[in-house]
Amino acid sequence: MQSHANHPDNSTTINLSAIATAVNPQRLENDLATVARFGGRTDGGVTRLALDNNDVRARLWLIEQASTLGAKASVDAIGNVFLDVPGSDPRLSPVVTGSHLDSQPTGGKYDGALGVLAGLEALRALKQAGFTPRRSLSLVSWTNEEGARFSPGTSGSAVFCDVRSLDETRQVEDSDGISLGSALDTCLAELDAAGVPRRPLATPMHAFLELHIEQGPILERDGVSVGVVEGIQGVSWFEVTVSGSANHAGTTPRAMRRDALEGACALATALREATRDSEDRVRFTIGKFTVSPGSVNTIPDQVTFSIDLRHPEAATLKNLEATFSKLTQRSWAGCHATLIPLSRVEPVAFPATLTTLLDGTANELGLTAPRLVSGAFHDAIHLAKHCPTAMLFVPCRDGLSHHPDEHIELANAVVGTQLLAASLASLAQ
Amino acid sequence: MQSHANHPDNSTTINLSAIATAVNPQRLENDLATVARFGGRTDGGVTRLALDNNDVRARLWLIEQASTLGAKASVDAIGNVFLDVPGSDPRLSPVVTGSHLDSQPTGGKYDGALGVLAGLEALRALKQAGFTPRRSLSLVSWTNEEGARFSPGTSGSAVFCDVRSLDETRQVEDSDGISLGSALDTCLAELDAAGVPRRPLATPMHAFLELHIEQGPILERDGVSVGVVEGIQGVSWFEVTVSGSANHAGTTPRAMRRDALEGACALATALREATRDSEDRVRFTIGKFTVSPGSVNTIPDQVTFSIDLRHPEAATLKNLEATFSKLTQRSWAGCHATLIPLSRVEPVAFPATLTTLLDGTANELGLTAPRLVSGAFHDAIHLAKHCPTAMLFVPCRDGLSHHPDEHIELANAVVGTQLLAASLASLAQ
Repeated sequence: MQSHANHPDNSTTINLSAIATAVNPQRLENDLATVARFGGRTDGGVTRLALDNNDVRARLWLIEQASTLGAKASVDAIGNVFLDVPGSDPRLSPVVTGSHLDSQPTGGKYDGALGVLAGLEALRALKQAGFTPRRSLSLVSWTNEEGARFSPGTSGSAVFCDVRSLDETRQVEDSDGISLGSALDTCLAELDAAGVPRRPLATPMHAFLELHIEQGPILERDGVSVGVVEGIQGVSWFEVTVSGSANHAGTTPRAMRRDALEGACALATALREATRDSEDRVRFTIGKFTVSPGSVNTIPDQVTFSIDLRHPEAATLKNLEATFSKLTQRSWAGCHATLIPLSRVEPVAFPATLTTLLDGTANELGLTAPRLVSGAFHDAIHLAKHCPTAMLFVPCRDGLSHHPDEHIELANAVVGTQLLAASLASLAQ
Repeated sequence: MQSHANHPDNSTTINLSAIATAVNPQRLENDLATVARFGGRTDGGVTRLALDNNDVRARLWLIEQASTLGAKASVDAIGNVFLDVPGSDPRLSPVVTGSHLDSQPTGGKYDGALGVLAGLEALRALKQAGFTPRRSLSLVSWTNEEGARFSPGTSGSAVFCDVRSLDETRQVEDSDGISLGSALDTCLAELDAAGVPRRPLATPMHAFLELHIEQGPILERDGVSVGVVEGIQGVSWFEVTVSGSANHAGTTPRAMRRDALEGACALATALREATRDSEDRVRFTIGKFTVSPGSVNTIPDQVTFSIDLRHPEAATLKNLEATFSKLTQRSWAGCHATLIPLSRVEPVAFPATLTTLLDGTANELGLTAPRLVSGAFHDAIHLAKHCPTAMLFVPCRDGLSHHPDEHIELANAVVGTQLLAASLASLAQ
């Protein structure tokens, strides 16, 4: 099939279905299996911590794939690996896709790896379909997305997009006292030895598209193969402390109690009620909840609990935070409560131009691709500050991730890759 | 003041106020200070664990006091120490008072010791007032009431009253692997060396009266010096488990959650509401409450909590237990709950004959002595099966016990001792 990329003003000249057809399920499956062996576990999962030996092997394997694409591999100062397929007009900024190759300590085969390998297969499919883009197409694998070995995560994308400094990021240490900088230098030395050239940080991009497993249950519940992610929820974390008085369970009348657990249950319920929206878009979770002194026959004097609050809209998040603050100031079963903000990430709304293009491309391919919001963090959160960014999600079984049992249906991965490839073509034409 | 004990059919012939006047505050204060030095702590508290060296010294000191009373000391097979003041009619069973000398690991000076020393002072006051009873009067110090070193507690009274076997009780080990039997033999050898004769278990008693600190806030709140205990609450302990599903806090819609903490808060609140009585007699406490997996951004899949339920009436306790069982069978925020009974002690109602005698004696002495129920366990719980039993409580500061800061006002201890002495006289005349 002949590409029509030399006619940029007429997008209908790209044969999207030919591109979709060129996506090869077997190749994608093979790549997923190959990469899963770098740090593969007997339980079916993967332990491929950022910049460990398995992560370096996986990078080198990825770099080897450049030749089949006619791409040039390069690595930047934070270790992000790029495969660049040149476009016909070198003056134009590239269209970029990718994700990450590092995993959680007992992670699955698809979180991150799928986005890199779907990107690789998309670029192969575009080449095979004979599509020659005006813009360069780049595949990227970001360093340390998970933050499991070096916390916080999304190091590669944050440093690339100048959200965090390289120096500061290099100083982060793992639990063995090894700095990210030291592990990075080892990795870079191996890539140098393999002849991989360095590239600058913060290079311009026309757009960034990331395909990822959903890590949630919505697409599976709705029986669809792919979804268009319109943004990433904002997240507020708080610690709430409820303080009462410890007293003997057998001898203290109810009227004389200040039971911190009674107060905490009432406050937790009130906070939960305050987040109850008919659209079911607020995510409110109390995950940690500790009661002291924790003795059967002693009235608790203190409860400390966490709040994880998420919403795609900044205004709603702010309103809920204000409500939490007001509720906490009340007396709860005679107890005093405090609310301490621990961390906050603003919501990201991906640009409508890009999400509309993804909708339209799905439509052209005859795919049902509902909109959804990401509940988890991704490198895309930083890329969104750098260039027009969006994401595609494919369903994972039971919404499970960060677990050896993490699973996707190959058919869904293929559909996601088809939509990714067609969308990249539309953007790069 | 001449005793009129030889006229048993006419109780008005005892001069109760003379007996009360004979209670010597200075002697009681001295004794409290002396016994507090056996295991005395620099923080003002006491560490006198059952059958440890301090406990043995305290027993030997108590035995030495027999001579001043004209009493005969003896010890039984479980180490309970008795001082017996003979009455005029040796065919009659004795009237007994006492408590325990062992403490919590970081205990106070009054829990237990006050009851023994108030009993000692009461017997001295009766002697000093010239009261010669028909019935013998006995002071007892029960072995291992606290159960802090050897669990369960109330060993001495339980074995004496044949509630537990001596053999089984001797086999209980402390955290160092020392058996109660071995520690007891060491203690008994010291008492043998001091010439203290053995006495049988389960000897008949006409009545048992125990004075104790309240370990609760009611008498202090009501500004009274002494209270008549009409019974000991029954206690039911349960473990409740609420099971849901762990999921990602950011990606799981509310409608798809089975949040064990949400369920547990709702169930805990419903259980608490079910115990809300206008008389404020039910004691309901959730003291242990653990949430797993306990991660900020994971929806909890399991909550386990304890219930400590107390009430003086068996029927109410039973009804509440049935209500708990019904409530637990419901679904809570989509979660399944289970209720496991852990332990149960039936309430004890002290006989009205005895509590009425205490009321009347208080009245004759011009004392306000309100009725109350014990929220804590005491040796009296076993004695109540053996003979007519009742208790007197004196207020302790802030209701605090089992703590070095445990404190009583001497004036209240004196009033309690006066009521104890006068009541013993009425019973023994």
